[in-house]
Amino acid sequence: MGNYYDESTICAQASGSGAGAVTVLRLSGPRSIEILDGVFTPAGKKTLRESENYKMRFGVIRRGEEVIDEVMAVVFRAPHSYTGEESAEIYCHGSEYIAQEILKLLMERGARLAEGGEFTKRAFLNGKLDLAQAEAVADLIASQTKAAHDVAMAQMKGGFSQELSKMRGDLVEIVSLMELELDFSEEDVEFADRVRLKELLEAVCAHLDKLIESFALGNVIKNGVPVAIVGATNTGKSTLLNALLGEEKAIVSDIAGTTRDVIEDTININGVTFRFIDTAGIRNTTETIEMIGIERTWWKMAQASVVMLMLDAQRPDTFEQNIANLSERVSAAVAENGIEKQVVVLLNKADLVSDEERDGYLSQIAEYGRKYDLSPARIFPISAKVRLGVDEVVSYLALSRKSMKTDQNSTLVTNLRHLEALRSAREALTRVWDGLSDSIPTDLVAQDIREAIYHIGTITGEVSTDEVLGVIFGRFCIGK
Amino acid sequence: MGNYYDESTICAQASGSGAGAVTVLRLSGPRSIEILDGVFTPAGKKTLRESENYKMRFGVIRRGEEVIDEVMAVVFRAPHSYTGEESAEIYCHGSEYIAQEILKLLMERGARLAEGGEFTKRAFLNGKLDLAQAEAVADLIASQTKAAHDVAMAQMKGGFSQELSKMRGDLVEIVSLMELELDFSEEDVEFADRVRLKELLEAVCAHLDKLIESFALGNVIKNGVPVAIVGATNTGKSTLLNALLGEEKAIVSDIAGTTRDVIEDTININGVTFRFIDTAGIRNTTETIEMIGIERTWWKMAQASVVMLMLDAQRPDTFEQNIANLSERVSAAVAENGIEKQVVVLLNKADLVSDEERDGYLSQIAEYGRKYDLSPARIFPISAKVRLGVDEVVSYLALSRKSMKTDQNSTLVTNLRHLEALRSAREALTRVWDGLSDSIPTDLVAQDIREAIYHIGTITGEVSTDEVLGVIFGRFCIGK
Repeated sequence: MGNYYDESTICAQASGSGAGAVTVLRLSGPRSIEILDGVFTPAGKKTLRESENYKMRFGVIRRGEEVIDEVMAVVFRAPHSYTGEESAEIYCHGSEYIAQEILKLLMERGARLAEGGEFTKRAFLNGKLDLAQAEAVADLIASQTKAAHDVAMAQMKGGFSQELSKMRGDLVEIVSLMELELDFSEEDVEFADRVRLKELLEAVCAHLDKLIESFALGNVIKNGVPVAIVGATNTGKSTLLNALLGEEKAIVSDIAGTTRDVIEDTININGVTFRFIDTAGIRNTTETIEMIGIERTWWKMAQASVVMLMLDAQRPDTFEQNIANLSERVSAAVAENGIEKQVVVLLNKADLVSDEERDGYLSQIAEYGRKYDLSPARIFPISAKVRLGVDEVVSYLALSRKSMKTDQNSTLVTNLRHLEALRSAREALTRVWDGLSDSIPTDLVAQDIREAIYHIGTITGEVSTDEVLGVIFGRFCIGK
Repeated sequence: MGNYYDESTICAQASGSGAGAVTVLRLSGPRSIEILDGVFTPAGKKTLRESENYKMRFGVIRRGEEVIDEVMAVVFRAPHSYTGEESAEIYCHGSEYIAQEILKLLMERGARLAEGGEFTKRAFLNGKLDLAQAEAVADLIASQTKAAHDVAMAQMKGGFSQELSKMRGDLVEIVSLMELELDFSEEDVEFADRVRLKELLEAVCAHLDKLIESFALGNVIKNGVPVAIVGATNTGKSTLLNALLGEEKAIVSDIAGTTRDVIEDTININGVTFRFIDTAGIRNTTETIEMIGIERTWWKMAQASVVMLMLDAQRPDTFEQNIANLSERVSAAVAENGIEKQVVVLLNKADLVSDEERDGYLSQIAEYGRKYDLSPARIFPISAKVRLGVDEVVSYLALSRKSMKTDQNSTLVTNLRHLEALRSAREALTRVWDGLSDSIPTDLVAQDIREAIYHIGTITGEVSTDEVLGVIFGRFCIGK
């Protein structure tokens, strides 16, 4: 990509906006150091311009005579900075008022407020990291579990980019082998190198398939395992959800005071995120509005990979209908979108019936399961209200996904944009393969290889458009 | 206070907890650098232990082989640190997961999570700042307006502490003059120095009085001008509040995206905070619950320094009763707590009556005002719903408080603890004064002077107890 010159100097708050002791402000662009020098009075004699790279300086930020704050400041000279440009950082007291005042001051001196992701975009355009690595930075910041963190870290370290680069190299070799063939085509000679060509092609296709397949796991790691709790109205779905969320609080907050922005309906168990899908209660109705709600429930269930059917132990008459319904919907969903489902039945309010009744219901449910071919993986008697059996459900979820543990050396595709590019590359290579078998003219086949190279190049940004960059970096927060 | 030795090494997140690009983590205590060195692999050859002070280093934080994050780290060796102890900071990616993992890692190596305010407490105990300055740090972080910021900044820079130190010096001189007198008391000689003694005492008392008086303004600057909007139910109080808050959004957010945690019901106008007090609608009722709510409204009104009475232009029959009621309550409140009130009447829904009606109502209200001795400072015809006249109300509030502008060189007392100490010192000096006039034995009088010295000493922390320190620093956020 080479060097990227933008005349503007940008500034933004880089640290989180909540209450804290320290706020980090950041500048990047040709005038960063000069602009900061204009408002910073150092405690020592040297100005920031004369300061050593990476050396923090104590001083005050002033507007005229007025002291805005006592701060630390540091300069990072090009190319030894995050963006590769002249950069500087300010560490001020953690007051929103102070951060605003300092940013205003920097803007008065000629900086402008950065757009979302603009620091990382500049780093990309200056060749400090490739596009896949830049996207990994955003994923890293967003990661809430060890698995998501590890996947993002591996991608940020460039493992994925290296694999892509290797594939790209192989494809370039294939093209050159083909062009060699092309040069001699009038002699109608099939070279021995065609063996090598096919070997390379097979290897690349196998690698692409592996990456494409990894998305199923990668997506779950990044976005969580989608779990739908379905069941008739008033069977206790919300109570269960609260009980599960309560469980989570006990699990995740081993450092008091650090977990704050708990996302509702998401639970981390042993490093795996389970994303609970809120569904409307299901009942037979002819009301149009309610039917729409229920259809939406089934649609959401279709997206889930774990489906929990909640039955009311006090309503044994409803068991068969519920199981029959769910079975039908699950079969239809799997046929349509191919997302395999693990079905679990929860017999709620089991504490309100006798032990004999409960055991009878459990066998009944198992029988209906066989009859309607639902085959639940497990049936749990629980009481969401008094948290009876809830821990067992949590343990079950945890164990059922233990294969999801990853390490930082394996590559998992987690990004939809990457998946699309990989699929497009794979499709192009399928055409290549078919073309080779069908004796399509070599120059046409080579065109498909070039298309595959193009698609792979879009992932790391060797090929990119302003529009694509806009979409990617627009998702970043300001200050990154 | 001298040096303070605590064997423990503490760690905490220092930057805000919201989403951001960067998170700052902080360590302080004897093992800070050693602990961080154990988990940080620098990009260069030198360990942190061998690193230059204040020099930021790039590297990775690892648990074994696993990379937690790529970070910058810096060491601040004692006494050249915020706390005066060995300290270090880590700048990691702004992910809550990463921050937690790094803190866990530091704790596994022997650090413990800091208590709220513990960094600043250590700075105080090591003599890096006095107690008044330490409290100013918390005020600075909390400040949301220029006025509040300037007051806190002046206090943090030590202006207040210097004034106290000067007073303390004067009081010590008084004591020594008295002791001199005491030594010669048997000779029953009244020294010429008694003139000097009285001069000093008068000066200190005048100074104390000025500081005590400054609290009225200081408190408003720190906590905002309390404004109560009272009126019958359904006159449009909430609509007005929304209209006012909308106004504020337009005023404060000249930097897009920087203002996030807007505190409901607080408006900054020209650097002054107006704190709107939510009140229940007032109507005649015999319902006990509702009467309690209405009594609470009047109690809140009593605390306000601006009272806005909202009248409904479509209910002219209610004007007299409302004005009579308010007048009675205002007189009672002023008599009880001495908080002078600026009363403003808002004739809401003025757009729903004819111009003639409106003008008639305005004179009627003025007349009732005179009749019941309420004397509203202004009467505004408005329509909260269509924002008619709301800007005039805002301008009026802004202008009415323009005298509140401060500069960083004047001292304002904003802290209730300081006010109490100053008052206690002043009372002791009143006893001294009376004692001198009533020829009370000099040694008893000297005792009161010492008491005044003690109280002034509690402000800067020359005199302090663990309990007092616990209360003060317990209010700080963790990481400060």
